[in-house]
Amino acid sequence: MDFSYSDKVQELRKKLTEFMEAYIYPNEKIYRNQLNQQSDRFGSVPPIIEEIKQKAKAEGLWNLFLPDNEYGAGLTNLEYAPLCEIMGRSVVGPESFNCNAPDTGNMEVLVRYGSEKQKKEWLEPLLTGEIRSCFSMTEPDVASSDATNISTSIVKDGDEYVINGRKWWSSGAGDPRCKIAIVMGKTNPDAPRHEQQSMILVPMDTPGVKIERMVPVFGYDDAPHGHAEITFENVRVPAENIIWGEGKGFAIAQGRLGPGRIHHCMRLIGLAERALEDLCKRVQERETFGKKLSEQGVIQEWIANSRIEIEQARLLTLKAAYMMDTVGNKEAKTEIAMIKVVAPNMALRVLDRAIQAFGAAGVSDDFTLAYHWANARTLRIADGPDEVHRRQIAKLELKKYS
Amino acid sequence: MDFSYSDKVQELRKKLTEFMEAYIYPNEKIYRNQLNQQSDRFGSVPPIIEEIKQKAKAEGLWNLFLPDNEYGAGLTNLEYAPLCEIMGRSVVGPESFNCNAPDTGNMEVLVRYGSEKQKKEWLEPLLTGEIRSCFSMTEPDVASSDATNISTSIVKDGDEYVINGRKWWSSGAGDPRCKIAIVMGKTNPDAPRHEQQSMILVPMDTPGVKIERMVPVFGYDDAPHGHAEITFENVRVPAENIIWGEGKGFAIAQGRLGPGRIHHCMRLIGLAERALEDLCKRVQERETFGKKLSEQGVIQEWIANSRIEIEQARLLTLKAAYMMDTVGNKEAKTEIAMIKVVAPNMALRVLDRAIQAFGAAGVSDDFTLAYHWANARTLRIADGPDEVHRRQIAKLELKKYS
Amino acid sequence: MDFSYSDKVQELRKKLTEFMEAYIYPNEKIYRNQLNQQSDRFGSVPPIIEEIKQKAKAEGLWNLFLPDNEYGAGLTNLEYAPLCEIMGRSVVGPESFNCNAPDTGNMEVLVRYGSEKQKKEWLEPLLTGEIRSCFSMTEPDVASSDATNISTSIVKDGDEYVINGRKWWSSGAGDPRCKIAIVMGKTNPDAPRHEQQSMILVPMDTPGVKIERMVPVFGYDDAPHGHAEITFENVRVPAENIIWGEGKGFAIAQGRLGPGRIHHCMRLIGLAERALEDLCKRVQERETFGKKLSEQGVIQEWIANSRIEIEQARLLTLKAAYMMDTVGNKEAKTEIAMIKVVAPNMALRVLDRAIQAFGAAGVSDDFTLAYHWANARTLRIADGPDEVHRRQIAKLELKKYS
Amino acid sequence: MDFSYSDKVQELRKKLTEFMEAYIYPNEKIYRNQLNQQSDRFGSVPPIIEEIKQKAKAEGLWNLFLPDNEYGAGLTNLEYAPLCEIMGRSVVGPESFNCNAPDTGNMEVLVRYGSEKQKKEWLEPLLTGEIRSCFSMTEPDVASSDATNISTSIVKDGDEYVINGRKWWSSGAGDPRCKIAIVMGKTNPDAPRHEQQSMILVPMDTPGVKIERMVPVFGYDDAPHGHAEITFENVRVPAENIIWGEGKGFAIAQGRLGPGRIHHCMRLIGLAERALEDLCKRVQERETFGKKLSEQGVIQEWIANSRIEIEQARLLTLKAAYMMDTVGNKEAKTEIAMIKVVAPNMALRVLDRAIQAFGAAGVSDDFTLAYHWANARTLRIADGPDEVHRRQIAKLELKKYS
Repeated sequence: MDFSYSDKVQELRKKLTEFMEAYIYPNEKIYRNQLNQQSDRFGSVPPIIEEIKQKAKAEGLWNLFLPDNEYGAGLTNLEYAPLCEIMGRSVVGPESFNCNAPDTGNMEVLVRYGSEKQKKEWLEPLLTGEIRSCFSMTEPDVASSDATNISTSIVKDGDEYVINGRKWWSSGAGDPRCKIAIVMGKTNPDAPRHEQQSMILVPMDTPGVKIERMVPVFGYDDAPHGHAEITFENVRVPAENIIWGEGKGFAIAQGRLGPGRIHHCMRLIGLAERALEDLCKRVQERETFGKKLSEQGVIQEWIANSRIEIEQARLLTLKAAYMMDTVGNKEAKTEIAMIKVVAPNMALRVLDRAIQAFGAAGVSDDFTLAYHWANARTLRIADGPDEVHRRQIAKLELKKYS
Repeated sequence: MDFSYSDKVQELRKKLTEFMEAYIYPNEKIYRNQLNQQSDRFGSVPPIIEEIKQKAKAEGLWNLFLPDNEYGAGLTNLEYAPLCEIMGRSVVGPESFNCNAPDTGNMEVLVRYGSEKQKKEWLEPLLTGEIRSCFSMTEPDVASSDATNISTSIVKDGDEYVINGRKWWSSGAGDPRCKIAIVMGKTNPDAPRHEQQSMILVPMDTPGVKIERMVPVFGYDDAPHGHAEITFENVRVPAENIIWGEGKGFAIAQGRLGPGRIHHCMRLIGLAERALEDLCKRVQERETFGKKLSEQGVIQEWIANSRIEIEQARLLTLKAAYMMDTVGNKEAKTEIAMIKVVAPNMALRVLDRAIQAFGAAGVSDDFTLAYHWANARTLRIADGPDEVHRRQIAKLELKKYS
Repeated sequence: MDFSYSDKVQELRKKLTEFMEAYIYPNEKIYRNQLNQQSDRFGSVPPIIEEIKQKAKAEGLWNLFLPDNEYGAGLTNLEYAPLCEIMGRSVVGPESFNCNAPDTGNMEVLVRYGSEKQKKEWLEPLLTGEIRSCFSMTEPDVASSDATNISTSIVKDGDEYVINGRKWWSSGAGDPRCKIAIVMGKTNPDAPRHEQQSMILVPMDTPGVKIERMVPVFGYDDAPHGHAEITFENVRVPAENIIWGEGKGFAIAQGRLGPGRIHHCMRLIGLAERALEDLCKRVQERETFGKKLSEQGVIQEWIANSRIEIEQARLLTLKAAYMMDTVGNKEAKTEIAMIKVVAPNMALRVLDRAIQAFGAAGVSDDFTLAYHWANARTLRIADGPDEVHRRQIAKLELKKYS
Repeated sequence: MDFSYSDKVQELRKKLTEFMEAYIYPNEKIYRNQLNQQSDRFGSVPPIIEEIKQKAKAEGLWNLFLPDNEYGAGLTNLEYAPLCEIMGRSVVGPESFNCNAPDTGNMEVLVRYGSEKQKKEWLEPLLTGEIRSCFSMTEPDVASSDATNISTSIVKDGDEYVINGRKWWSSGAGDPRCKIAIVMGKTNPDAPRHEQQSMILVPMDTPGVKIERMVPVFGYDDAPHGHAEITFENVRVPAENIIWGEGKGFAIAQGRLGPGRIHHCMRLIGLAERALEDLCKRVQERETFGKKLSEQGVIQEWIANSRIEIEQARLLTLKAAYMMDTVGNKEAKTEIAMIKVVAPNMALRVLDRAIQAFGAAGVSDDFTLAYHWANARTLRIADGPDEVHRRQIAKLELKKYS
């Protein structure tokens, strides 16, 4: 288990860090201001992001997430981890490098399971950053933490599939550049439990696809990205839009979620690091009761616990990445489940301490803490709630002795 | 220490509960929709709230917070506690009964320390609910958890005072009905530590008063109420606008904060009760892995811990109220400090569990959980952060043995 | 809900506190030394305890636990609560006032359900403190947190019952004065779930009763009291020794456990108060890094949290006591379950902080902290583990909405 | 950062694991029984331990802790970590392999800082396991978490040093084989803060060395090892017994504590693993309320959290070991401080869950849980309490930004 950084990774870390300093952090407020000045927050995209993307692409900081050598950077999970962490320090970061969810997961699905035609039509413009995509899995009417509950139907009719259902938390669907959705639904409710479901490509402009609203997260609309509630009413797409084949939905989801989960964890570690950095700076500037906040024992305890928790979360994430690379996602399932529980909870604790140290400023939008907190809070739910992952970890542990 | 409800309180609880069922809960979405339809969220007030206020006033459910017999309901803190808890179950609740912060605290300041003229001009329209007010204490440039840090200046100049400074978290200042601010500042920086400060009445339309922006809380703007950042630039008000007298600011703040803190705690208990109720209902409706969520041991543990924590917080709040009524706010300072720490943290835990049980719906605005969470989170900071209160509790405890 | 102390209770509190100062605290080390000098720690009883008992009896501080007017002090649970708390501050306390478990529970069982003959023979010498008793319920071979698992058999044979089984955690059985056991077993394994069990009186000198060993708690043997593992092999007792009647075991247990649980909680609050007092004194005496430990923010936070948690636990215990007195143990079952969870966990946290503040001394026997901690730890298990109580609280809460 | 096991380590792990299965676990009860049968628990040593030691030595499983190639196995910290973890699974483990504290630390001090004469006389018999040693640093009269508080005096008098002071927690001094103490005291109270102290070798049979008592830990006497309180009254030793030189005490302590701390952490991870294993087995054997404990969601959550916490603690410990090996103990001080906080707290949580799952059996001596818990609890205090380590971590973190 070797976590050392190769020269290539060292080089990329350096470049990324410099890029963040030069183009990302200074543009966070500009991005927000451009967005706030739009008449419709979901109507267009702050121009600054496209400028940054061009710069990042020019620097070769592009599609680093994609392990595939042909389409992407060909980095292993372990190599990508420290890079993803750096990008995750800013909400503007991941997209700047074409490494943001859910596009990354969608691109990976297409690379792995897509037909040549599907790759041509949708993967290529996603890889260039020309279009964006969304992933429609969660449904408002059932507890989606149990994926077998999903009720959207995908019915074959001649050489088409007809899709009916209601989805929400289709993140990214608010973006005007979002052209394609990967939709999860049931093609055969009578098949064995894990073969009932399929994934299918649905262009956003297909008749019957209706964005009902953007669902806010703790008051944030996350424009222009957005978390859409979408109805699919008799939506017809060519049969060739099915990904991999009927009944493969669950298998693709499993394949998709492994790397997706680990990317989220890496980004969470990055934003926790940034919060701790912000906290350490702030408490050295402010005084109460005759001494600096940084001299208060309670605050020192927050700092120490934050450092401890971040280090541990990072090491466990690296281990999971290492195992995914060496023994595969399936064998690494305990580790993936563990970091999926650890990282968001760790980030929430670190962010909460930082918020408390910042006082009223911490809950405002003068700093990124409150927004990052809300973001991290969703990740205790998205891709399976903590409780489902803990249950799985326990079952695997118990199995050793039964 | 008798926590029994008198007949009067029993009767009021019954009336309030019925009122909440009839007029508050069903109008929460209407209130939000009316607000969302306004072109400027801070430009006017959803008409429904004034309708509800008229009904509440007609039912005698009005100004219950005010212990003064002449101006208010004449209830003790202990009597008001269970009523305030009921109102606190909804964000629309407190204002409906003219019992919302910071107006309650401001009215109490005027009843206790205001001149007859001040009462006539500002207290009376506040009591009728005709106008609203704000309280300008916290400053962005200093750690306001130590009140002696405050830097706004209030300088006598002939028969006027001239005010200069920058305040934020002046909650309620966004409301178009907000006509008056109570501003805290220093009249004499050379006086003893707790006699440097004064409070002064500043009409919102005084030249030099400028609302710079509304500060969001997590992603919520809390319109039309709002949390304003305000600059005071050479703002001149008549000398008679000073409250009680020069140097009395700290003393008034202490008097103001006792009841204010306990009201917040009561409301937090109410919203925690509502969250637990919502949680219990939801988990009986949803299924995962072949059984109802309510049959999952982990969720049962959440429910039990929530019930335990709510009960304990309520009892401690009642004790604090009882002591304020019987031995006075000063003698009750340990108890007030304790509930100030206990109630927000309790509410946050209960709400967080409910959010987790609701899954993605929990972080959205389909339910009140996420909004209430953000609201409760600020109360670990407002009126003194947890850490300052714990410090005070410890010092009082240590003093017993030194 | 009136928690005020009556004059009678005030008077008893004063007397008890003075008695503790005069006779209990100063004799704790003497008690231990006398015990340590015995050749067999279970062979006899430190003489000092009998001396103290005579003094307590002379002062009328005797059998205060017993609500029955004829046999005991006739105090309500609410009246007894603050007295029991005071006794609980010392491990020597409860027995000194004839108020120690399991004798209190056993006496109550006999008062409520015993025949006149049983009362004459066993209750009377227990009330005078002449003999001691034990309660044999828990079994090593099954998870006794589910009482229906119990497997000891009690079989009618003519005018005798024959008992076979293995029990442990028969606390008090080590005491040479222990003359009688109340044994729980099954008289009819085919009866409905809660009517299979009976309780029966078994004199300790009955042939076939064999104390196998004293089970330690962490490293404490709790001599001379002791926690015995006992085998019952063809033990024959007269049929009249059955308590109340066949099949009543579960009902008696329920009746027994309510007050028993609340007494434990009161005592735990007492020992937590003492730990906090010890902590506050110690940290004002010791210095590190140039300042007193009491000036360290982290330690102040421990003190504040301890005070907060003790206050809340006490109020909830008083509420449970009040409800037991007014609506009965059955209606008070949520409250009893809640304090059964709250009090031991609270005490463990307070004690753990005190141990940490005392450093190495805290884990030693120079202070009572480590011993009290071990004692409190067993109370998260005894009389039902936390998890079973939380489960019950949740079910009662869920029932409100189903 | 490469955590992979070399072939040598793999081989040693296999041998150690087999040895534990063959000779350690089966002999734990024999060891305890032999000890209990001794008339004086500190009078002699259970013969079984010397038998096991001979076997371990024969197998080459001896002095693995010692990085020195000449005297020991020459393993790095990273290589030793997984081996130490295995030994730590049993209380009998470490001594069996001559790898128990405080002998390991003392041997390391002698290897690094001892004179040839000191090595000859004391190191060699320690390395063969012929004699044992103790380390006298902590004092009952001062807060020893601040090492500069230490008050024992070491005064030069001709070619001797005269030692006066009172020490406690001199662990291992109870063992009849303990022949030598390393004593920390002040040779020059007027020197700079960290140059006042020296370490000196004091044979246990020197006149004036008096073992006052053995201090228990949560009721455990830890015989025959023991934690002694020792008075040193005009104890005279040759001047050549000073280690390294006057004023080097603090520097040696720093050098000694790094590896000592990490060994403790490795052992704690081992005993946590064993507790989790025991827990997983137990809950599959016991039933309550109609299902196996292992099917209860709450218990599954305990298992998952335990696995998560163990993994994270192990990775952080490996990182600390790796850094000690590569950049040195001084550069690794944040990491050493972090694991010193993490490992005991992790082990306590895992053990506490296991105790709760075992019910009454968990607090008894039928299993190793309660004893291991008490042991782990001391390690939140020994070698510096958590709070001192957190303080240091915070200061190092803050320094990055000041």
